[in-house]
Amino acid sequence: MNKFLNNFDKIKFFFNGKECSIFIGFDLFKIKNFFEKFKEKDQVVIITNQRLYDLYYQEIRKSILTITNRVDKIIVSDGEKNKSLKTVIYVLNFLKKRRYSKNIVLVALGGGLIGDLTGFISSIYLRGTYFVQIPTSLLAQIDSSIGGKNAINYKDAKNMVGSFYHPNLILINLSFLNTVSDRQFQSGMTEAIKYGIAMDYSFFCWLENNYKKILFREKETIKYLVYYCCKIKSEIISQDPEENQNKRVLLNLGHTFAHAIESKLNFSDVLYHGETVSIGIVTSLKVANLINKFSKKNTNRIISLLKKFSLPLFLSKEMSYEDYLFFIQYDKKRIRRNQIDLVLPVEIGKSSLYRNVDRNIVIRAINSKIKNF
Amino acid sequence: MNKFLNNFDKIKFFFNGKECSIFIGFDLFKIKNFFEKFKEKDQVVIITNQRLYDLYYQEIRKSILTITNRVDKIIVSDGEKNKSLKTVIYVLNFLKKRRYSKNIVLVALGGGLIGDLTGFISSIYLRGTYFVQIPTSLLAQIDSSIGGKNAINYKDAKNMVGSFYHPNLILINLSFLNTVSDRQFQSGMTEAIKYGIAMDYSFFCWLENNYKKILFREKETIKYLVYYCCKIKSEIISQDPEENQNKRVLLNLGHTFAHAIESKLNFSDVLYHGETVSIGIVTSLKVANLINKFSKKNTNRIISLLKKFSLPLFLSKEMSYEDYLFFIQYDKKRIRRNQIDLVLPVEIGKSSLYRNVDRNIVIRAINSKIKNF
Repeated sequence: MNKFLNNFDKIKFFFNGKECSIFIGFDLFKIKNFFEKFKEKDQVVIITNQRLYDLYYQEIRKSILTITNRVDKIIVSDGEKNKSLKTVIYVLNFLKKRRYSKNIVLVALGGGLIGDLTGFISSIYLRGTYFVQIPTSLLAQIDSSIGGKNAINYKDAKNMVGSFYHPNLILINLSFLNTVSDRQFQSGMTEAIKYGIAMDYSFFCWLENNYKKILFREKETIKYLVYYCCKIKSEIISQDPEENQNKRVLLNLGHTFAHAIESKLNFSDVLYHGETVSIGIVTSLKVANLINKFSKKNTNRIISLLKKFSLPLFLSKEMSYEDYLFFIQYDKKRIRRNQIDLVLPVEIGKSSLYRNVDRNIVIRAINSKIKNF
Repeated sequence: MNKFLNNFDKIKFFFNGKECSIFIGFDLFKIKNFFEKFKEKDQVVIITNQRLYDLYYQEIRKSILTITNRVDKIIVSDGEKNKSLKTVIYVLNFLKKRRYSKNIVLVALGGGLIGDLTGFISSIYLRGTYFVQIPTSLLAQIDSSIGGKNAINYKDAKNMVGSFYHPNLILINLSFLNTVSDRQFQSGMTEAIKYGIAMDYSFFCWLENNYKKILFREKETIKYLVYYCCKIKSEIISQDPEENQNKRVLLNLGHTFAHAIESKLNFSDVLYHGETVSIGIVTSLKVANLINKFSKKNTNRIISLLKKFSLPLFLSKEMSYEDYLFFIQYDKKRIRRNQIDLVLPVEIGKSSLYRNVDRNIVIRAINSKIKNF
């Protein structure tokens, strides 16, 4: 654990041959100016929403201005509903109108949504631009800003259109978490718990032992949490960047069900992404129990940890298995049109991709009341 | 030169770590079934236009059917005007409706337009699918099907939205050239001449010495022509896949002016792409003469070769330099918003990227009458 809070951590790795650096620290932009590379660039454009613009834009802009005076911004509406083709077109029109060259830096200042949207546009504007992530939510800091997965929703299909395009630079200012609500912060914790269940037993135990400090947002604990998650994620994705080798795919634990729920809810943000993943994980535990006899004891341990972070275990209003199955048909993991492929835990700290899971088992798991756990 | 016409040539190379094979031959689909890999795939979808569907679809489908019965097609309208977001949305809707999985093969059966469109959709549908090119025009066979550059036009900006996404497999059936008109065939020759000017003096001489056989479409000559161009292109792009190292960029010789013309003509296909590139090359010769004293003698030699293939040297209806400069602002090579970057020949077989070319020189070159050559 890093004992010096006024320092920053650095993680460097390669994604399909492309170098990426992550810098993590409190008051990150006060410690060092990370924008040196921007000097050679034609233009810096920060994509963010109104709230984050009001909170952080001036601070970041001021930092960049010491390097170059070519800084611009695009404000987009937040909400999963706006992770859409319509918003992509809005941003493309903006870039086109100003005739920005390919030698531009697109900076995502925001959570998963802004990151996804900016990454996708970076990958397609003039066949690809320099891309920087400044994640502001816990979920984006520990998960979605790393790995180059970006996408927009297409009608009712979650993340149907997107690409693999990795940021060149990820700047994680832990101080930005100060303006994240408890509910949103706890929602982000799902992805940390997911790392533990899917591939790292000792980290799962660390989460169990430190949940109070995390909830209290004890600074050193938060720094370790974010650093360690970034370390796990960057190692996995540099080994298996485009999810072809059954490694990266394990990070989708719980997500097949989560995406179905989000699609059914019409991307309305009634539930945060981390919350639907929590419900998805719980459903996966049930499927695992039916398929590989995943133990009740481990199930209870996981549920107990999810509860510590006030994460939901089931939908307050039930969703029919027909609805689940309808949306699971859009799942990107499938190798056949009509089959269900699921990542399921084998034990805590170990998971596996199960191809062509028996439909009836999935239905039983969906229909099983949570009270049975 | 390969002496056995009933054989095929194979070129294998890597693009950003991704393996690609090119197979080239007459009656290619009668020699061998190249679709073995499709057995493991969920679905094959061939994207083509009505004319090529009528000509070749059944032949290709029959070949694939021996491997898998999951073959589908999408007919799109041809013409540069349809290389648009509208067509992308049309295809995405089709794929979504049928819920095709990521384990799909998208096959481009067509010229540069169909290839660009299919490549772009392959790169964004479910974050990327298996992608095959079956190029039908000479231009697509010797140039655009190789290298993974794909894009759509965005309003009046040529190729503004796109990505680098390489096909896994390129199947070049030289027999398909039989249904290519002379004008379209000759238009494709521009890109062969471009390779010669930009980087291969001996190939330029070969073109000079063999133009009659080429125009007569003498089979062995055509096979060598296509094979050699594929070899040049694949070597360049495997060394510099995303045009970052001043190698691949040289293949843009003539294209900055060509794209400006195409944009001005509103993507109306009055001129074929190879024809606008021919005009672009001629304009570049003039700029080169003003900048690096590119010789009159070499200029005449190039113009003489272009003329052999009935390629246009200038626009029949003049285009103002203001129009040129307006559209050059969308050029992807620029590193600054308001500068002009051009690939110019230094001698025949050697070219270089010139950054920030003097605007007045460009204007002089545009305004200089071709008669002065």
